[in-house]
Amino acid sequence: MDAWWRANNYLTVGQIYLLDNPLLREPLSSDHIKPRLLGHWGTSPGLAFVYVHASRLIQRTSQQAIYLAGPGHGGPALVAAGYLEGSYTETYPQVTQDGVGMRRLFRQFSAPGGIPSHVSVPTPGSIHEGGELGYVLVHAFGAVMDNPNLLALAVVGDGEAETGPLEGSWKGISFLNPERDGAVLPILHLNGAKIAGPTVLARKDPAEVRALFEGHGYDVLEVEGEDLPGMHYRFAGALARAWTAIRRIQDEARSGSWDGSRPRWPLIVLRTPKGWTGPDVVDGVQVAGTWRAHQVPLSGVKGDEAHLGLLEDWMRSYRPEELFDETGAPREVVARANPEGVLRMSATPHANGGLLTRDLELPDLRSYAVPVTAPGSSRAESTRKLGEMMRDVYAANDDRFRLFCPDETNSNRLGAVFEVTDRAFAERTTPDDVSLSRDGRVMEVLSEHNCHGWLEGYTLTGRHGWFATYEAFAMVSASQTIQHGKWLQEAAHLPWRAKIPSLNILLTSTAWRNDHNGFSHQGPGLIQNVITQRGNVGRVYFPPDANCLLSVADHCFRSRSYVNLVVIDKQPQLQWLSIDDAVEHCARGAGVWTWAGTDDGESDPDIVLACAGDVVTMETVAAAQILRERLPALRTRVVNVVDLMALPRPTDHPHGMEDTLFRELFTDHVDVVFAFHGYPGAIHQLVHGRPDADRFRVRGFIEEGTTTTPFDMVVLNRASRFHLVIDAINNARRTPAGAAELKTWCHQRLAEHEAYVVEHLEDMPDIRDWTLNEG
Amino acid sequence: MDAWWRANNYLTVGQIYLLDNPLLREPLSSDHIKPRLLGHWGTSPGLAFVYVHASRLIQRTSQQAIYLAGPGHGGPALVAAGYLEGSYTETYPQVTQDGVGMRRLFRQFSAPGGIPSHVSVPTPGSIHEGGELGYVLVHAFGAVMDNPNLLALAVVGDGEAETGPLEGSWKGISFLNPERDGAVLPILHLNGAKIAGPTVLARKDPAEVRALFEGHGYDVLEVEGEDLPGMHYRFAGALARAWTAIRRIQDEARSGSWDGSRPRWPLIVLRTPKGWTGPDVVDGVQVAGTWRAHQVPLSGVKGDEAHLGLLEDWMRSYRPEELFDETGAPREVVARANPEGVLRMSATPHANGGLLTRDLELPDLRSYAVPVTAPGSSRAESTRKLGEMMRDVYAANDDRFRLFCPDETNSNRLGAVFEVTDRAFAERTTPDDVSLSRDGRVMEVLSEHNCHGWLEGYTLTGRHGWFATYEAFAMVSASQTIQHGKWLQEAAHLPWRAKIPSLNILLTSTAWRNDHNGFSHQGPGLIQNVITQRGNVGRVYFPPDANCLLSVADHCFRSRSYVNLVVIDKQPQLQWLSIDDAVEHCARGAGVWTWAGTDDGESDPDIVLACAGDVVTMETVAAAQILRERLPALRTRVVNVVDLMALPRPTDHPHGMEDTLFRELFTDHVDVVFAFHGYPGAIHQLVHGRPDADRFRVRGFIEEGTTTTPFDMVVLNRASRFHLVIDAINNARRTPAGAAELKTWCHQRLAEHEAYVVEHLEDMPDIRDWTLNEG
Repeated sequence: MDAWWRANNYLTVGQIYLLDNPLLREPLSSDHIKPRLLGHWGTSPGLAFVYVHASRLIQRTSQQAIYLAGPGHGGPALVAAGYLEGSYTETYPQVTQDGVGMRRLFRQFSAPGGIPSHVSVPTPGSIHEGGELGYVLVHAFGAVMDNPNLLALAVVGDGEAETGPLEGSWKGISFLNPERDGAVLPILHLNGAKIAGPTVLARKDPAEVRALFEGHGYDVLEVEGEDLPGMHYRFAGALARAWTAIRRIQDEARSGSWDGSRPRWPLIVLRTPKGWTGPDVVDGVQVAGTWRAHQVPLSGVKGDEAHLGLLEDWMRSYRPEELFDETGAPREVVARANPEGVLRMSATPHANGGLLTRDLELPDLRSYAVPVTAPGSSRAESTRKLGEMMRDVYAANDDRFRLFCPDETNSNRLGAVFEVTDRAFAERTTPDDVSLSRDGRVMEVLSEHNCHGWLEGYTLTGRHGWFATYEAFAMVSASQTIQHGKWLQEAAHLPWRAKIPSLNILLTSTAWRNDHNGFSHQGPGLIQNVITQRGNVGRVYFPPDANCLLSVADHCFRSRSYVNLVVIDKQPQLQWLSIDDAVEHCARGAGVWTWAGTDDGESDPDIVLACAGDVVTMETVAAAQILRERLPALRTRVVNVVDLMALPRPTDHPHGMEDTLFRELFTDHVDVVFAFHGYPGAIHQLVHGRPDADRFRVRGFIEEGTTTTPFDMVVLNRASRFHLVIDAINNARRTPAGAAELKTWCHQRLAEHEAYVVEHLEDMPDIRDWTLNEG
Repeated sequence: MDAWWRANNYLTVGQIYLLDNPLLREPLSSDHIKPRLLGHWGTSPGLAFVYVHASRLIQRTSQQAIYLAGPGHGGPALVAAGYLEGSYTETYPQVTQDGVGMRRLFRQFSAPGGIPSHVSVPTPGSIHEGGELGYVLVHAFGAVMDNPNLLALAVVGDGEAETGPLEGSWKGISFLNPERDGAVLPILHLNGAKIAGPTVLARKDPAEVRALFEGHGYDVLEVEGEDLPGMHYRFAGALARAWTAIRRIQDEARSGSWDGSRPRWPLIVLRTPKGWTGPDVVDGVQVAGTWRAHQVPLSGVKGDEAHLGLLEDWMRSYRPEELFDETGAPREVVARANPEGVLRMSATPHANGGLLTRDLELPDLRSYAVPVTAPGSSRAESTRKLGEMMRDVYAANDDRFRLFCPDETNSNRLGAVFEVTDRAFAERTTPDDVSLSRDGRVMEVLSEHNCHGWLEGYTLTGRHGWFATYEAFAMVSASQTIQHGKWLQEAAHLPWRAKIPSLNILLTSTAWRNDHNGFSHQGPGLIQNVITQRGNVGRVYFPPDANCLLSVADHCFRSRSYVNLVVIDKQPQLQWLSIDDAVEHCARGAGVWTWAGTDDGESDPDIVLACAGDVVTMETVAAAQILRERLPALRTRVVNVVDLMALPRPTDHPHGMEDTLFRELFTDHVDVVFAFHGYPGAIHQLVHGRPDADRFRVRGFIEEGTTTTPFDMVVLNRASRFHLVIDAINNARRTPAGAAELKTWCHQRLAEHEAYVVEHLEDMPDIRDWTLNEG
């Protein structure tokens, strides 16, 4: 074990420093040193130390384990681990286990065309980037849900431990079920410093640190020091105790002798010096144990004979000749610390979850269809139908589907799921609790970060799910959406990474229908971010009604390795399409609603009224109705867009519709009045490059309105039916007789509305939708 | 006190339910009930209870205090508090302290044209919205920094306590200095439930809760129950003990007898039933003490005689006739619980920080100028100059300026500030620590949420600061940027809210220069979100060099109530403008760089090369240089944009340049090749509506590249000098002789680059900028 650890440390230092002479077969010279020294030494020896001890545990117990390195900048240690275990060579055959391969291993690190300095998508065995900090525990907890045989070892760096998302994620055990879920063993690695200074936890009284984690519900085991082999014995002991405790908790739960109370899961606090086994004092300054060891402890090695000597001494202190044979391959003394086959943490299929993914058993979406005899003739809460579909997905897939939601499942009208399962809760329950139990599998915690991150860990290890949240508060976890999207974008470049279930995000309680909540709850910002993701990942859908939502959801349930953003409100809303029409409409992504407009479909219309989003679709149909009734000579075409990414050119996004189809819908010269759910700029940027994009006049959310009625919201944001009619007349190719009068009529309606609002100010009119015939 | 509390509860219930008959002078009938019942009862009585006890403390001690309601949905309680204290009427004279005013108070709540249901910008005494949860403690800690006489009472709801940002913010005391800063008294109000179920902290063993907060470093005081007057006595006792402890800590620190260790600040855990004093059992179901009391405990009152009776009983249980006189004004028994004047928490100027704001003493920006004899002739780390400026701002304003940064002040080249102050740190320090002390005023914590939120609290109470962070990780706190922007947008509508210092955000370590960090560190997404803010708040700047950065920063230091996003990299970069030219250029927001192009300034050019952002500016100047040297017959104009919001039309943003100026720069028909720092779509949307916007061909970050050289980044994202030259030739109005050859030459250069990259793959070429003459 110590040999493996030394080998790992040697390979880490080599990755940071060496361009050549990987085995130190000749004296180190400046020519062997990289011109620019990059990488993070400080955390690496600790990560490797934990790794080899975990391997020993695996060898003795055949425990399936996955290793999540919170301090992801210790990338070289994890790369070296895969290399020593052979899986790196299995994945990247050119990086052979010999001198040539080791040279390549060193040269690729932090190099152009090579690999990043942190644990990243190309690292075998990783589901956790460790770039943006804060998510190691959420990924670990997500990985073990419905994964009873998996142990997730989550190393938490003391820098990362300062972030909000990480601090909020210790409570994962309050939602874990030892019978059905696997276990997370957090190892808080306190090495004292982050980039430029000490950390809070490292400088607190150890009694406070202990109290903190006991307060979170853990049984705290502590290991501290740098003495060898003492540290090996002590850490091995702590790890064995932790594993035994985990197994005891699980055995008790799985054998029926569990009293149902929340177990006290073990947690290890490991205190080692930052940069352990590295240079102690350099140029008279203390390095090991301080923030100076964070990145490159010995700088300016090229051309500095003294530092060159220190580096050579440091590397030789690991006695490479004992570790690697004459060809450069790891010797038996090293290799025998490796577990076998897929038990090697760098080769576990749990870290390449697509290998384990089983398709969902999906019900027929038609069984949830809302009957629609004529467009706009009935109302429904669309998300309630999705809730019914999710209920049956839960029932048919009780080992691989979960919904994650910050305390809003009922509020978002998805509550049908509670007919078949409960909210998960491992803390004390009472008889008054409703749909809440330790056996529940609906994940509700008032933390977007936990919900989002758990779902990421859940899908990365091969299971399926949705994250449902209030539209505005999706921005809380926007950086997770972006980072997971980046993971998927990178993974798409790596053939060995099997595709995983998509990250499905349902945004409801939208900007247009926040009624009493007001301005702080009105924010369609996440759309702005998802449309910038590469075309092989980002998807945005605006189903206008329940049947379209069912069709879109059915697609999302089946899709792989996308970020699917689905936006629809939860309030009762008009229904437009029968299920058959909806399926066809959604498959095309966008289409003409001939029943709403007045053009004959043959010649070009005078104006196109386009829409994407439920509320603005109703306004658009209402505007078309007004035009149909009051200005029938104007040839109006109504286009509804479900798949937002059908708008850009096919060169910009794979969903981008072909130019001929685009012209069929939007022509290439007729003006388009586009009513959009989000910020107007999103449409402006998506249609850029289409024929004469200037002709798109977009209405959307422009940060107006607060506590008010839904109709007042569209008026304040200048996207009401009346605004759309005026826009249509102003921009139409022809001005039929009566157009000026209709504009006047619209302005009157808006003035009446304003008068009504002023008159009824604070008068609490019933907050209701305007339906089609109003106005 | 109890009378005041009963009055507050009465007014809360009235706001939720009553349209009329505010004083119950006649029997309650259906006509008096609002048609739609909105609001949150559950948390309100607890908030009011804490409020009146804080008022009592203020009366006895003259302590200046501010009240932050984390459970912001208890808005009616805070509105009622301001009403009872008279400040509501002072702010909104139409809401008088009589029956007419009370009727108005009730009707405006959660009504169109009225006020939101949560504590919001219109609420006197508030600096904290309480819409998006998680930020009550960061706002509280920011409010008391450099504010020694202020006590911030921060009520943390047990729902909010589940969020990551909130959990990460308890550690504020690890950065608080009792000598120079005020105090935060957190009151964790455990009433057991959130919207739809119990909370983790409410269901944990109280011993675990105690351990958790002792672990964070607090001295935990607990008060539990619902018995009256017992609860009054017990809570008053706890509050007095907490206040005494705070004063003792402060007195010790301020009298010189402090040993320097981190004080154990008090924290109160208050356990009361949710919906305390409200309906206990409704329709045979337990309401008080459960999640059912969260919003409206008695539903369907209109037209339900039984519920109507329950409501009347409930309201009369507060004995309104004892509380309000015949006119409806609060009686003396209520009013005497109010502190005097600005000591009333609803009237404290600390909650209207613009009243307390003093301008910064600013040094002359010219004293930091980089000498620039000719454009592109020298290099500098631009942010280092800003660091020097900040150092002197610190020195001259040691009571009202701070920098907030997640552990990256040195990394971002702002380290000059450490010449005059240290990093703040209240935990144990060691002799090896550098620039770290309890007296430091640079706020470094590895949490974007804390940094951003502290700065918000700091500026909301009238002080000045910057948040500096890695560009990609600005998305971690994007929702805070958005929500604070929303606060500022709303505040702009309220004349009584004085303007506060702007939220200044410096994004550095940008997408284009992340070298070894790679893809996860490349994300200019926040720009996408700030450009959607209303024009009276959102500002985005791309200074291309040090002198422009100084000019932009000088403007930001002086500005009020904006969100200023400033984007510039930290690496050595070419310098373009002398300080005089920079000041003039930045004042205009955009301008022609005649020295870079070849047009004569009189007639229209053949092509416009525009740029915004430092790296792409260099590529644009290099492209122009290539064109000047190799295709001099092409009339090329170079336009640099510093102020991004100069691009939209003046109707869309107040910075939008007038049409004539826009035409002077971009003409109205010549094609524009625009090299942009962020996602190309941002430019597409901003120029929409400008003459012939289709002619803008934008190059920018398109999610390409990972660990590679800076030049390879611009190649991979198709924004290199060679791509720009090819774009220029392809889109120019004329094709001078030699154009085709130059395109071929550019393609050859790109092919050579690709070959170079392949050849030197993993060969660690020195990562360097290409300068102007390369290529």
